[in-house]
Amino acid sequence: MAAVILKGTIVSAPALGQLEITEHGFLVAEDGVIRGVFPVLPEQYAGAPLEDFGDALILQSFADLHLHAPQYPMLGTGMDLPLLDWLNAYAFPTEARFANPDYAREIYRHLARELVENGTTRVCMFSSLHTDATLILMEELEKAGITGYVGKVNMDRNSAPGVLEETTEESMRETLRWLDACQDFRCVKPVLTPRFTPSCSNELMAFLGRLAAERALPVQSHLSENQAEMAWVRQLHPDCRQYWETYAKYGLWNSRTVMAHCVWSDERERTAMRDAGVTAVHCANSNQNICSGVAPVRVMLQEGVHVALGSDIAGGDQLHMFDVVAATVRASKARRILDGWETDFLTVPEGWFLGTSAGAAFFGEQPGFAPGNRLHALVLEDGTLPQPHPLTAAERLERSVYLRQPGAIQAVWSEGRKVFSAN
Amino acid sequence: MAAVILKGTIVSAPALGQLEITEHGFLVAEDGVIRGVFPVLPEQYAGAPLEDFGDALILQSFADLHLHAPQYPMLGTGMDLPLLDWLNAYAFPTEARFANPDYAREIYRHLARELVENGTTRVCMFSSLHTDATLILMEELEKAGITGYVGKVNMDRNSAPGVLEETTEESMRETLRWLDACQDFRCVKPVLTPRFTPSCSNELMAFLGRLAAERALPVQSHLSENQAEMAWVRQLHPDCRQYWETYAKYGLWNSRTVMAHCVWSDERERTAMRDAGVTAVHCANSNQNICSGVAPVRVMLQEGVHVALGSDIAGGDQLHMFDVVAATVRASKARRILDGWETDFLTVPEGWFLGTSAGAAFFGEQPGFAPGNRLHALVLEDGTLPQPHPLTAAERLERSVYLRQPGAIQAVWSEGRKVFSAN
Repeated sequence: MAAVILKGTIVSAPALGQLEITEHGFLVAEDGVIRGVFPVLPEQYAGAPLEDFGDALILQSFADLHLHAPQYPMLGTGMDLPLLDWLNAYAFPTEARFANPDYAREIYRHLARELVENGTTRVCMFSSLHTDATLILMEELEKAGITGYVGKVNMDRNSAPGVLEETTEESMRETLRWLDACQDFRCVKPVLTPRFTPSCSNELMAFLGRLAAERALPVQSHLSENQAEMAWVRQLHPDCRQYWETYAKYGLWNSRTVMAHCVWSDERERTAMRDAGVTAVHCANSNQNICSGVAPVRVMLQEGVHVALGSDIAGGDQLHMFDVVAATVRASKARRILDGWETDFLTVPEGWFLGTSAGAAFFGEQPGFAPGNRLHALVLEDGTLPQPHPLTAAERLERSVYLRQPGAIQAVWSEGRKVFSAN
Repeated sequence: MAAVILKGTIVSAPALGQLEITEHGFLVAEDGVIRGVFPVLPEQYAGAPLEDFGDALILQSFADLHLHAPQYPMLGTGMDLPLLDWLNAYAFPTEARFANPDYAREIYRHLARELVENGTTRVCMFSSLHTDATLILMEELEKAGITGYVGKVNMDRNSAPGVLEETTEESMRETLRWLDACQDFRCVKPVLTPRFTPSCSNELMAFLGRLAAERALPVQSHLSENQAEMAWVRQLHPDCRQYWETYAKYGLWNSRTVMAHCVWSDERERTAMRDAGVTAVHCANSNQNICSGVAPVRVMLQEGVHVALGSDIAGGDQLHMFDVVAATVRASKARRILDGWETDFLTVPEGWFLGTSAGAAFFGEQPGFAPGNRLHALVLEDGTLPQPHPLTAAERLERSVYLRQPGAIQAVWSEGRKVFSAN
């Protein structure tokens, strides 16, 4: 793979709340790895092929660290119930259809295309409990150029009998079969995925914890999303003072762990997250849609917890990460109101950092377009919109977050490769 | 104008929280007036031209009861400040550009087209203080087929000196000139528009109150949006116990009054609204974006206050009313959380009612597709989306609210006339 040189107004998020802006600059990568952002093209690249995007914005692409692929078909429906009822009425029956590989192929191809066309190139994703559909999902993501982690869901208790269920033995056996079958994927890797504590027997949790250690696998699950859920966890694990301990006691709590929601995580739970290096995935739309609550993101950040963003479709109704960033900023304002105006809301640059750099960090990347990072980027052409005055790059970024601009993404790179082009 | 007969799956909101659904039914209008919705076409219309939209949804079009047309160019920017600072930093300089009629023409044509293409056919809209630009706005709306009220803004104090200002005398004179000049519009009518109490001297308020009475004109303004604003109003009118009284004492408070926001209206103020028949316009996105608060919509409805919805661009970042309905439902869930789970959130059918029937009521219409109403409708084709199971009409409506579907609106009718067709 030769040099990739992109010219345009380059905006990246090198730190929470900061934007690094290079007007009409050059983003250079070689062999898929970023060499740097330059106001003037270094001499050694003179003559190398260059894509000039004129006044367009060149931005980091997004990392979506929590979403449920098999809930994609129900996007935008079923928002009138709280979490546990919603799972039974909507989510489980929808996921059950992925027993059919043909259906899975059709839906997952559609999903992969929509993700990449909208600038999401890194994911940490739940599949369903179905091994074959999970492998199909991984194939379709890999083909579309999306990178990251996908997990076959484990759920051997409190499931949906006759609709969506697996025994403990099946769950363990299928997990091993899945792990064996997905060794050849280049950019999409497995992540162990106990659905959430109420869905997994102690035996299964222990099995997954051993597997995580033996095979050095990451783990994703849900944490402290909803108060009824938390009460249920306390009943199921009376030995654990807090929800997070039900993961920790089985070896599912470390720096390669992603925990979605954490709406109700108190200071003690947040400290446990920070100390273990667990990444909390904030899912603003989902938390509001199914009335879970509003996560204390500002406080988490102040305390040093790693926070990234998730679309959490289909509890979340918006797959596109521009919208997710806007929802995050908006939710932080609701949280400010809830906190009696005592916490600051998240600014757009802060929300942007969480949706890009903070998510990429889980994949070992440095913030922004740092040299050494794999090239993950998108080009946004926003020149056709009316504007009150010549906008700064920061204002254009803000507008791209708030304003829906179908067709504005001109091109997307993932792992150094151009994976989408509008032309 | 002859009969208009539309065939499809007809969904309307005849009462708060109710949907009336007629699968593959007929919506019939004559001379622009709805005759009824029929499961079988009445014999007298046999042979009349009919538009068959197959499985598409036929819905009421939207009423947007609060938006600032001259803030359209700044849509999606400047969300990091509270109301009063935001006005000075963003809104006033943007509005000032409408001193230029050519600029106004270009922007307002764009706005009118975007409104109608997205199914908004009724508005109650702020212009700027500029008379000529206001007339241009009314022309462009009328041409596009949008109906409702537009107001030249009055603001003779605490404005933006050198940027956006008018003297008391200018404000009165220009208001009269504007009213004289807009008598020939057929569907777009004037509404008196004191910006908000801090922007209008007592003399100007008194003038507008007299004008409202003499010419039987409706009134629109802002009420109890933000706590700093309310404190300022108390300083300016120490004789008034509450904000609403500053309008009431000048004759600007009656059943033809629209008040945007009402975030902080307490029981006494809400009672005054209900008793006078004032319409409260809830602007969910705006209130959250500029951190004003979350209006107690459920409580207002329970108390019998008329509530409709506004996009409130550009404090609100979403012009499309599908999004505004989704934002309304979502905000009601934040409000539920703020209320310690003691108020119910708004369901999608409730949000839908507020965005359609409740807004149309301000223009004298009955809820839903009631016989006698003018035909205001849109056709939505959502058949290309993946779905988990065959969706009911109610589920399709819910999905249309949450899911962005560019290009899904096939046609729009306003005042009996087809004003948009995708083909």
